[in-house]
Amino acid sequence: MAFGWIDGQAESRRRAGLVRTLRPRAAGTPLLDLASNDYLGLTRHPEVVEGAARAARTWGGGSTGSRLVTGTTELHAELERELAGFCGFEAALVFSSGYAANLAAVTALAPHGSLVVSDAGNHASLIDGCRLARGTTQVAAHADPDAVRKALSGHDGPAVAVSDTVFSVDGDAAPLAGLAGACREHGAGLVLDDAHGLGVLGDGGRGAPHAAGLAGADDVVVTVTLSKSLGSQGGAVLGPSRVIDHLVNAARTFIFDTGLAPAAAGAALAALRLLRREPGRAARAGAVARALHATLTAAGLEAVRPDAAVVSVRAPSPEQAVRWAADCRAAGLSVGCFRPPSVPDGIPRLRLTARADLSGAEIERAVRVIGETRP
Amino acid sequence: MAFGWIDGQAESRRRAGLVRTLRPRAAGTPLLDLASNDYLGLTRHPEVVEGAARAARTWGGGSTGSRLVTGTTELHAELERELAGFCGFEAALVFSSGYAANLAAVTALAPHGSLVVSDAGNHASLIDGCRLARGTTQVAAHADPDAVRKALSGHDGPAVAVSDTVFSVDGDAAPLAGLAGACREHGAGLVLDDAHGLGVLGDGGRGAPHAAGLAGADDVVVTVTLSKSLGSQGGAVLGPSRVIDHLVNAARTFIFDTGLAPAAAGAALAALRLLRREPGRAARAGAVARALHATLTAAGLEAVRPDAAVVSVRAPSPEQAVRWAADCRAAGLSVGCFRPPSVPDGIPRLRLTARADLSGAEIERAVRVIGETRP
Ligand SMILES: Cc1ncc(COP(=O)(O)O)c(C=O)c1O
Ligand SMILES: Cc1ncc(COP(=O)(O)O)c(C=O)c1O
Repeated sequence: MAFGWIDGQAESRRRAGLVRTLRPRAAGTPLLDLASNDYLGLTRHPEVVEGAARAARTWGGGSTGSRLVTGTTELHAELERELAGFCGFEAALVFSSGYAANLAAVTALAPHGSLVVSDAGNHASLIDGCRLARGTTQVAAHADPDAVRKALSGHDGPAVAVSDTVFSVDGDAAPLAGLAGACREHGAGLVLDDAHGLGVLGDGGRGAPHAAGLAGADDVVVTVTLSKSLGSQGGAVLGPSRVIDHLVNAARTFIFDTGLAPAAAGAALAALRLLRREPGRAARAGAVARALHATLTAAGLEAVRPDAAVVSVRAPSPEQAVRWAADCRAAGLSVGCFRPPSVPDGIPRLRLTARADLSGAEIERAVRVIGETRP
Repeated sequence: MAFGWIDGQAESRRRAGLVRTLRPRAAGTPLLDLASNDYLGLTRHPEVVEGAARAARTWGGGSTGSRLVTGTTELHAELERELAGFCGFEAALVFSSGYAANLAAVTALAPHGSLVVSDAGNHASLIDGCRLARGTTQVAAHADPDAVRKALSGHDGPAVAVSDTVFSVDGDAAPLAGLAGACREHGAGLVLDDAHGLGVLGDGGRGAPHAAGLAGADDVVVTVTLSKSLGSQGGAVLGPSRVIDHLVNAARTFIFDTGLAPAAAGAALAALRLLRREPGRAARAGAVARALHATLTAAGLEAVRPDAAVVSVRAPSPEQAVRWAADCRAAGLSVGCFRPPSVPDGIPRLRLTARADLSGAEIERAVRVIGETRP
């Protein structure tokens, strides 16, 4: 039968403890959430919700076409202007997802004959971007500017280095100054995915590239997502106007994709304005993550020191990670459970996310549950 | 300079008349719209708008995580159930875009050692899916079951044929029965992108696969988008539960992407329910397209006979296509203008879309403007 081969793969997954199933959540759940990427606690903020609802009423349920045909509204342009301004870049381009933004940035900036140097811990969307790009990819050791330097030194022609700013699994930060230095020595561009930095790092949440003094540089391009700190959906590429104009003309996930829904643009814009008005939210997310890490460590749990709002706790095996997460859940705590293929090194983890609005008591409760359910 | 090479490409595009720029539209535009993919005229329908707003109020501005972590709500599950039921498939899986759904379907169903036979006129997202897939791709002549049969006959192991049901540029339909026959002779699966069929073709808009008697078959997988007839954003894969479960476990654009925003899911669900209640909308979109074609032909314009709601009119050159579209616009009519790389054969076109809610007078007016501005 046509798809019969799937059953064998399903069976292997079952044996390895790697089966994934969907668990729809209810609107009002009593669980304490340490699993979402809603770092600033904004997704249900009345202004964000109203931003979505108002945009739907004004513009309709969808953008109705490619951004190049009917899919660009004044709302998209407004969001692009404010995002670029906030993060300190000349221009911005909004996509239907962060995934699509990453595919666009990497493929459009890595033409035939070019080299892409990609960090070994990069997000799946950057990896897929490398695989789709016409240039050649070299994978560099994780968070290692010297490895990037070495890879670039053998190449003649256009080149970019590509890295997450905050790696999604362990929450560790990339050495941005070192990467920029290595790229500049070789006239290469630097593409940074700030999905987990925007809203958390940098002055008032302007992101990791801003904190590293790279915002607005003519050799730096940043991608962000609207789906984490900004509590919505969508993604954007930020950079020099020359690069943004190039993406409009060359990026397939821009040209051949329907524009972001107005409601998502409206929600993200409302969240961005809220963050501008209440910049302390960004620092609070980081402080909560450090408090969470300190409390976990004091309880004898081995957690990676967080550079942003993600705190990762290793688990002994995939099965035990799944059971651990399920036991947390049964005790009222929602945590992420990352197993292969969602981890770069095969090591399963509980993935905890700090939210700016978590209280000290909630952190204590979360750590108590995680400690008590430990395998 | 790092991105200096971009300027040369920009200059070549300028010389070839292929520069693209964004033109943000206002909320209330006096233009007659024959450019959007809002085939049923639902994107601004009060029920669709209210579906978006209500979902944002109930669930927040974003889904807050991967569908496998926190990004699946009961709303997503409801939409999946109703979409699958409507189109006649066992199960459905919702994605952040139709583009992501196509990447998922093709990559997950074309493992190492497999063969993908891809129609030469397929949409960019299917082509990118082929390029990302681990299997080998063979491009088959456009709309040619014999070419598919021939490509499949030399292969041993898992295989799929992949095709748009309605091709996005010319609006011509794929020979679904012939394709299914060719696949079945060889035990291959058939993956159909019904982006432009859902809501327009089939009983009450159930889509082209339903019309061809392929709905629910254990060797057929269909992708749809929520961004055209359903007036929202997002995509879905429909198929046997075995395939859907496999996607949950293997599709990177599912696992590593934030779930569709609740407002988009809510808008699509509202549109779907409207279509169920008012099934005549589907047939009207097709009738409007045929009337548009007939009126164009009567006016001496060369248009491709529409199989669904897209009507394509060829233009002599990219520059003239751009000027033609601009002249239409100046005369109050919005039409799509497709140039390389958005056309498979290099031929520029005006792309017109029929909407179920276009009146006879509007069709007359559109055709008059197109005729008067003809280069
Ligand atoms: C580092 C990183 N980049 C990109 C993405 C993709 O963004 P989105 O989910 O908004 O498509 C994610 C998360 O999903 C991510 O963690
Ligand atoms: C045939 C076809 N498939 C897939 C897509 C992608 O869908 P979406 O724009 O919803 O991502 C489109 C249009 O954009 C299309 O025309």
